[in-house]
Amino acid sequence: MAMANDKEALDGLEWRVTVPSGSSVKMEWESSVIGRAWTWFAGAVLMVKSKVFGFGKNAWKMGVDDPRKVIHGIKVGIALSLVSVFYYARPLYDGVGGNAMWAVMTVAVVFEYTVGGCLYKGFNRAVATLSAGGLAMGIHWIASKTGEKVEPVILSASVFLLGAAATFSRFIPTVKARFDYGVTIFILTFSLVAVSGYRVDELLDLLQQRVSTIAIGISICLLVCILICPVWASEELHLLITKNMEKLAESLEACVEEYFMKDGAGDGKNSCSQKSQGYRCVLNSKASEDSQANLARWEPAHGRFGFRHPWSPYLKVGAAMRYCAYCIEALNGCINSEIQAPESTKKHLKEVCMKLSSESSKVLKELSSSIKSMKRSKSIDLLVEEMSTAVEELHNALRSFPNQLTQAAVQPAVEANEEKKHSISVTTTLPVMEVLPLITVASLLIEISARIDGVLDAVRNLADLAGFESVENEKPPSPTHQEQEDRKAFQEV
Amino acid sequence: MAMANDKEALDGLEWRVTVPSGSSVKMEWESSVIGRAWTWFAGAVLMVKSKVFGFGKNAWKMGVDDPRKVIHGIKVGIALSLVSVFYYARPLYDGVGGNAMWAVMTVAVVFEYTVGGCLYKGFNRAVATLSAGGLAMGIHWIASKTGEKVEPVILSASVFLLGAAATFSRFIPTVKARFDYGVTIFILTFSLVAVSGYRVDELLDLLQQRVSTIAIGISICLLVCILICPVWASEELHLLITKNMEKLAESLEACVEEYFMKDGAGDGKNSCSQKSQGYRCVLNSKASEDSQANLARWEPAHGRFGFRHPWSPYLKVGAAMRYCAYCIEALNGCINSEIQAPESTKKHLKEVCMKLSSESSKVLKELSSSIKSMKRSKSIDLLVEEMSTAVEELHNALRSFPNQLTQAAVQPAVEANEEKKHSISVTTTLPVMEVLPLITVASLLIEISARIDGVLDAVRNLADLAGFESVENEKPPSPTHQEQEDRKAFQEV
Repeated sequence: MAMANDKEALDGLEWRVTVPSGSSVKMEWESSVIGRAWTWFAGAVLMVKSKVFGFGKNAWKMGVDDPRKVIHGIKVGIALSLVSVFYYARPLYDGVGGNAMWAVMTVAVVFEYTVGGCLYKGFNRAVATLSAGGLAMGIHWIASKTGEKVEPVILSASVFLLGAAATFSRFIPTVKARFDYGVTIFILTFSLVAVSGYRVDELLDLLQQRVSTIAIGISICLLVCILICPVWASEELHLLITKNMEKLAESLEACVEEYFMKDGAGDGKNSCSQKSQGYRCVLNSKASEDSQANLARWEPAHGRFGFRHPWSPYLKVGAAMRYCAYCIEALNGCINSEIQAPESTKKHLKEVCMKLSSESSKVLKELSSSIKSMKRSKSIDLLVEEMSTAVEELHNALRSFPNQLTQAAVQPAVEANEEKKHSISVTTTLPVMEVLPLITVASLLIEISARIDGVLDAVRNLADLAGFESVENEKPPSPTHQEQEDRKAFQEV
Repeated sequence: MAMANDKEALDGLEWRVTVPSGSSVKMEWESSVIGRAWTWFAGAVLMVKSKVFGFGKNAWKMGVDDPRKVIHGIKVGIALSLVSVFYYARPLYDGVGGNAMWAVMTVAVVFEYTVGGCLYKGFNRAVATLSAGGLAMGIHWIASKTGEKVEPVILSASVFLLGAAATFSRFIPTVKARFDYGVTIFILTFSLVAVSGYRVDELLDLLQQRVSTIAIGISICLLVCILICPVWASEELHLLITKNMEKLAESLEACVEEYFMKDGAGDGKNSCSQKSQGYRCVLNSKASEDSQANLARWEPAHGRFGFRHPWSPYLKVGAAMRYCAYCIEALNGCINSEIQAPESTKKHLKEVCMKLSSESSKVLKELSSSIKSMKRSKSIDLLVEEMSTAVEELHNALRSFPNQLTQAAVQPAVEANEEKKHSISVTTTLPVMEVLPLITVASLLIEISARIDGVLDAVRNLADLAGFESVENEKPPSPTHQEQEDRKAFQEV
C-alpha cells in the first residue's frame, strides 16, 4: 500500500486514492458503492503497476549487469522462430506432419544456457530416443509373436521392469551427472512406443520420422547456441576459478589489514569490509563448479581449450581454495572477536603478519593470473620463497615474542627506578588471554600459507595435465602440446 | 584384462583365454584366425561380464544401503504400468486417442523422488499448460482475424517474444527456484499451439483433451507417490539438519579428544579419525538443504508438519551450523599441524579444553534432539550455562597460563639448587612458538562455543516459528499452536 501511495505521489496525481486497509477508513469525498469499488480497483491497479514496475526494474538491472542473460533469451526466441518457420509450410498434427511437433518440443527442452548444456541434452535426447525406440520395437516384435492375450502382459511387464531399472540407475552418481536427462527420455520413449498399438513396420516408420525431426530440432539448437554469442561452460568454469582465487587473495589481505589498522583508522573499516568478505564466494562454490565441469566435458575443442582438456584438476583447485577459505573464515571470526589484544602488543607482530598476508596474497594472485593466461608462471617460485621467508620471520617473531614483551615492560620500569633489576619478573604475570586473538591470528596465517601450498600443488597439477605453456624461451613446449592434442584427437577418431 | 583372468580363474575354467594385449603375445595352442577371433570374443565377453558383475554389485549395495531408492524405482514402474493399462484399451496415436500419449509423458517426466518434487512438477505442468494454451489460443484468434499474410508473422513474432521473455525470467532467483519447470512447459506448449495449423475451435477441443490427459497423468503420479511409501522432502530436510548437527557435535568432541590423547594412545587416532571428520558433511550441505526446502514448500500438511510449516528457519539453522563447521575445519588443521606443543604444556589445558568441547558437544546434541522431537528442550539453558562456565574456566586457565608454566619450570630448578631463587627468569625465554598450536586450539574452541550460541539462536527462532511444544506441564501451548494452524488454514481456504 505504501508503495502504491509513493508511486502515486511521484506521478503527481491530483486525486488521492485511499486504499481501504481496514474498515475504519472513512471515505469522505465519495461514499457510494461504485465509488468504493472504483477506489479499490484504482488502488489495486496502482499496486499491480508498482509491483510490475519494481519487477521490471529488477529485471532490467539484471539484464544490464549481465547482458548475456538477455542474449540467451533472444537466442531461444530465434531458435523457436526458426523451427516454427521451418515447419510452418506443413502444419503440425496432420498425418505425417504430426511428428514435426517433436522438433518444436526438442528446441524448447534442449536449449540451454551453455554450449555444454545444449550438447549434453541434445546427445542424451538423441541417443535415448534411438536406443529406447529400438529396444521397444524389439520387445513389441517379440510380444506380437505370442498372441493377443499374452501381448499386453509382456508389454506392461517390460514397461514396469525397464521403468523401474532405469529410474533406479539415476541414483548412481555417474549416471546422475552425465545421463540424467537421457534416462528420462529413455523411459518416456520406451513407454510411448511399447504402449502404442502400432504394428512393427509402422513403428519403424514412426521412429525414423521422430528421430529425423528430433535431429532437426537439435541441429537448430546447436547452430543457434554455438553461432550466436556462445557461452562455453569451460570458459565459465575457468573464469569462476580465477575470479574466486583473486577474491580469496584480496580478502586475505584486506582481513589482516583491517585487523591491524582497525584502531588506527576507524573509517577504514567499512571500506575494507566488502573486500574482506570475498572469501565467502569461495565457501559455497562447490555446486556450481561441479555442474560446470560436468557440462564442460561435453564441449568440443574451442579457443584455448583443446580436445579432452582435463576438467577434474579444476575441481581440485577449487577444493584447495575452499580449504583455504575455511581458514580465512576462522581468521575473520578471530578478528571480529570481542577480546582484542592491546594496541601495544599488536604492533609487535603487525609488520610480520602484514608481510605474510601480503606475500600469501601475491602467491594467490600470481596463480590466478597463471591459470587465466594458461601459462606457467616464471615468478611463482620466487613468490613462494618470499612467502616461506615471511612465515619464517613470523616464526622468529613468535619465538622472541615474550622477550620483546619483556623489553617493552622492562623499559619503563628501568626508567622509573634504575637500581631495582628484579623487574624482569613482571613478564611472569603476562596474561596469555590478552594476546590470545593476536597469537591465533598469527597461527591461522601460518596455517593459511600452508594451505596456499596446497592450492599451488593443485595448480601445478592442472598446469601439467592441461599442458600450460612455459614462458621460458629456450624450450617452447607449445607445439609439442599441440602435437599431443592432435595425436589424441586422431586416436579418438 | 587382469579382471577377466581373475574371473576366469575363479570360475575354474579348464581352458585358458589369453587376451591379446599386444602383438607380441604368442598363441601356441591354437593359431587359426577363427581361434583368435574366439579368444578375443571370449575375453571381451568375460570382461563385459566382470564389469557388469562389478556394476551390479555396486548397485546391489546401494539398494541395500537405502531401500527407498529401490522402492522409488518400483513406484515409477507401477505408475507407468498403471497409465499404460489405463490407455491400453484405446491405443495411442489414433485420432482423439493421440493425446493419450501426454498421460504417459506426464508420468515419465513428473514422477519425482519426493512428494514435494512430484507436486512441484505436477502443479507447474498443469498451470503452465493451461496458461500457455489459453494465451496461445488468444493470439491465434487475433492472428486469424488479420488475414493469411500477416498471420504467420504475428504468430512467429509472438513465439519469439514470449520464448525470449520466458527464458529470461528463468534467471530470476524466485522463478528459478519455484517455477523453472513450469517456464519450460509454458514455452513448449505455447510454441506447439501457436505454430500448429489448427482453427481456434479445434484448438479448444485439443487443449481440453490435453489438459484432461495431463490431469490423469498427474493424478496417477501423485496417488502412487503419496500412497506407496511416500518420501517427504520436509522429513528429509528435518532429518538432514538433525543428523548434521549430531555429526558436528561428535566430530568436535572427537577432534579435541584426538588432539589431547594423540601421544598417550597412538592406536586411538585411527579409530577417532572417521568420527572427527563428520563436520565435512556440514561444509557442503547448502545445495541439498536449499533444494529440499524449496520442495518442502509444495508439500501439504502431513505428520508433524502442519500447513505452512516454516522452512526458511531450517536454512538459517543450516547456515549457523556451517559457520560452526568452518571453525572446526580450522581446528582440525591446527590439530594436524606439524608444530606441536610438548606434552607437558599440553596437559595444563587438557582438562579445561576437553571439558569445553564436551559441553559444547552436549549443547549441539541437545539442540539436535530438540529439533528431532520438535519439543523445546528443558535442559538446554542448563547446558548452555555449563558451556559458558567451561569457557570461563578456559579463560581463567589461559589467564594463569604463564604462571602455571613458571611453576612447572621452577619446580625442577628449585629441586636442583635450593638456594638460587632467581630461576623465575626462566619464564622469559618461554617461546610462544611451542605453545602456539595449543593456544590456537583453545582460542578456536572459544570461538566455536560462540558460534554454537548462533546455532542456539537459530534453533530458538525455528522453535518459535514452527511452534515447538514446551515440555513444561504448567502451560501447554500445543492446542494454541493447533488453533493457529487451523486459523491459518481457514484463512487460506
